[in-house]
Amino acid sequence: MADIHSLTRKLQRKNDSKIVLYVADGIGGLPREAGGKTELEAAHTPNLDVLAQRATLGLSTPVLPGITPGSGPGHLGLFGYDPLKFDIGRGVLEALGIDFELGPNDVAVRGNFCTIDDDGNISDRRAGRIATEIGAALCEKLDTIKIPGVEVFVRHVKEYRLVIVFRAEGLGGEIEDTDPQKIGVPPLEPIPRDDASQGTAEICKEFLRQAAEVLQDDHPANLLTMRGIAKMPAIPTFEQVYGLRAAAIAVYPMYRGLARLVSMDVLDAGQTLDEQMNRLKAAWDDYDFFFIHYKYTDSSGEDGNFDLKVQRTEDFDAGLPGITSLNPEVIIVTGDHSTPSKMKAHSWHPVPTMIAADTCRFDACDAFNESQCLHGGLGQFEAKHLMLMALAHAGRLEKYGA
Amino acid sequence: MADIHSLTRKLQRKNDSKIVLYVADGIGGLPREAGGKTELEAAHTPNLDVLAQRATLGLSTPVLPGITPGSGPGHLGLFGYDPLKFDIGRGVLEALGIDFELGPNDVAVRGNFCTIDDDGNISDRRAGRIATEIGAALCEKLDTIKIPGVEVFVRHVKEYRLVIVFRAEGLGGEIEDTDPQKIGVPPLEPIPRDDASQGTAEICKEFLRQAAEVLQDDHPANLLTMRGIAKMPAIPTFEQVYGLRAAAIAVYPMYRGLARLVSMDVLDAGQTLDEQMNRLKAAWDDYDFFFIHYKYTDSSGEDGNFDLKVQRTEDFDAGLPGITSLNPEVIIVTGDHSTPSKMKAHSWHPVPTMIAADTCRFDACDAFNESQCLHGGLGQFEAKHLMLMALAHAGRLEKYGA
Repeated sequence: MADIHSLTRKLQRKNDSKIVLYVADGIGGLPREAGGKTELEAAHTPNLDVLAQRATLGLSTPVLPGITPGSGPGHLGLFGYDPLKFDIGRGVLEALGIDFELGPNDVAVRGNFCTIDDDGNISDRRAGRIATEIGAALCEKLDTIKIPGVEVFVRHVKEYRLVIVFRAEGLGGEIEDTDPQKIGVPPLEPIPRDDASQGTAEICKEFLRQAAEVLQDDHPANLLTMRGIAKMPAIPTFEQVYGLRAAAIAVYPMYRGLARLVSMDVLDAGQTLDEQMNRLKAAWDDYDFFFIHYKYTDSSGEDGNFDLKVQRTEDFDAGLPGITSLNPEVIIVTGDHSTPSKMKAHSWHPVPTMIAADTCRFDACDAFNESQCLHGGLGQFEAKHLMLMALAHAGRLEKYGA
Repeated sequence: MADIHSLTRKLQRKNDSKIVLYVADGIGGLPREAGGKTELEAAHTPNLDVLAQRATLGLSTPVLPGITPGSGPGHLGLFGYDPLKFDIGRGVLEALGIDFELGPNDVAVRGNFCTIDDDGNISDRRAGRIATEIGAALCEKLDTIKIPGVEVFVRHVKEYRLVIVFRAEGLGGEIEDTDPQKIGVPPLEPIPRDDASQGTAEICKEFLRQAAEVLQDDHPANLLTMRGIAKMPAIPTFEQVYGLRAAAIAVYPMYRGLARLVSMDVLDAGQTLDEQMNRLKAAWDDYDFFFIHYKYTDSSGEDGNFDLKVQRTEDFDAGLPGITSLNPEVIIVTGDHSTPSKMKAHSWHPVPTMIAADTCRFDACDAFNESQCLHGGLGQFEAKHLMLMALAHAGRLEKYGA
């Protein structure tokens, strides 16, 4: 009974409540200078602020204090899956990021086109950063490679980047990168780290042998290296652990993929928040839980554009009535991590979070931002516990013990 | 050295200090509506508020965020026993709740009288909710059942509910319920979940066989089902883990039983807080630690009676001078969980808590309630760590490491 999901499997209770998880990617920020306002504090967010007045606020820690999460661990935490326990390989994330529907028998590989010289040494690890059209055409050629007993999929990502997926029963996913991380040396061999992965290593070798033939006339992209080779992790489904029929409404493939990892249904989200909210309304009766993902608070932060992040935050705020008008029993507003525009990157800073429900113990917070969340009733908590509170407010957890 | 008690066993130090744990069951609450006061905030609690001014306040999480504890896990946490590690079976709690003195070789069973039709199917899972006098008389009859090699105890709880205890060396307690949870089908067999419980399953069968004979003319209570079959968990004593001679002063049997689980001495508490405080004074020299339990903040909350909970909270406040007048080195005031009258049930909301001692670092709190505790010096913490702080303030823990 020690971990979260052994508890929720045992205590879950069904009812007609709805839970909406509204995620502004990278919402947490920093002031431009000491004493200034963060992006979220500078933004005019009337809808979030009204909700804050009937919610409990707090700051969530995605992984551990000081640990900056990628999108994978950040979202796993929000979904209630311990991000230190469930490790998602890079190859898997890359495949999820292009909407490839990975299955439990799949081994996913990040590929980089590279240039090989006449001596067999790598002279350019990114094949001169070939154009996206060229990379796409080469991937179509590679996708014709056949290996007996294995399904092989080759998909283009962008420029020199691609994804390769091997599908067969019993493939291990523990294989070293073939990218030597320097030039003037040949690619490394795909070395298995365990017995179960020896067959997979042979498949990688055979793929690379055929790829060398297919690409021999395609200088500068006349070979490829393999990185982040990984198998789909075995992750229990949202339905199993929480008893929730869950749907994801996300514009970007990566987030659809992360939702698919925990077996949410991935709905057609369109391209805008308006379209996402229309989809939410249309699917309202079919699910218990909705994950709505908004990307641009993160991308504007990554661009280092404080004013644009403020504007994107205001756009996110403008989407909120699409949720509140449906009167879900529980609304959570949060992010998967912080992305301060000052840092132009993801960061470890705790993430503004609020839960609105009829069973909230109110705090004195009257706006949704970092300063207010610091004094909120949720305190500072681990993101992986957020789903427990969502289920509790939804009346979906039995009492533990008598 | 990873768990709490391996630390306290190693670091414990004896002295003459006194620690009093004053528990208002279900003390945490909710406002009737957004922006309103909780029961504790609405109550006039001058004694608690004066103590708060020289105490450190905070909010304790009984199990995990969002997890609503029963009385068992709630109190284990307060006693410093990880409630996710020490799992108390339902049968054990039911036996504790009627003051039955369970021993380490006992297997306890919750029984429900039921009605069996001529085909051997259950037609009423609660035997028409027979009157308490009838249930008591039937239990006396069942208490005469003899099974070779086992002591058998049958005790009435109320109406159709009873407790059966089997006492013998080496009995396992892992057995499935015989209650099928529906009518029109026969009771299930008592199926052992492990080898050690096969003998116990045979004892259950033999008991049920004899019970059918004993009860054959007692329609509608002509059989019983067995639920929550469980053995006393192996729990180290308070004296072992903390070096404290501990006494419980609780009016309700359940809380005496929970104190007995960790081997506290259970004192005669009388029926009122006044009597409990007199007992405290009389036993003052004989113990290092006192657990004083007050029930009515919980029961009024469970009844959904906001005003009555306010009044019971004021009664609890009025009891406090019985403790402060004895000048214990450490006073803890807390609850085992929240019971908001708005929810008419236990809840997961964090629990107002304070520790008063000469070694407190003071916060700005000047009253004991949810809003003040949210900004208190203890922050939000896991209830299982409370005893560590109590021991520390009592000067009863050595330094860890050099």
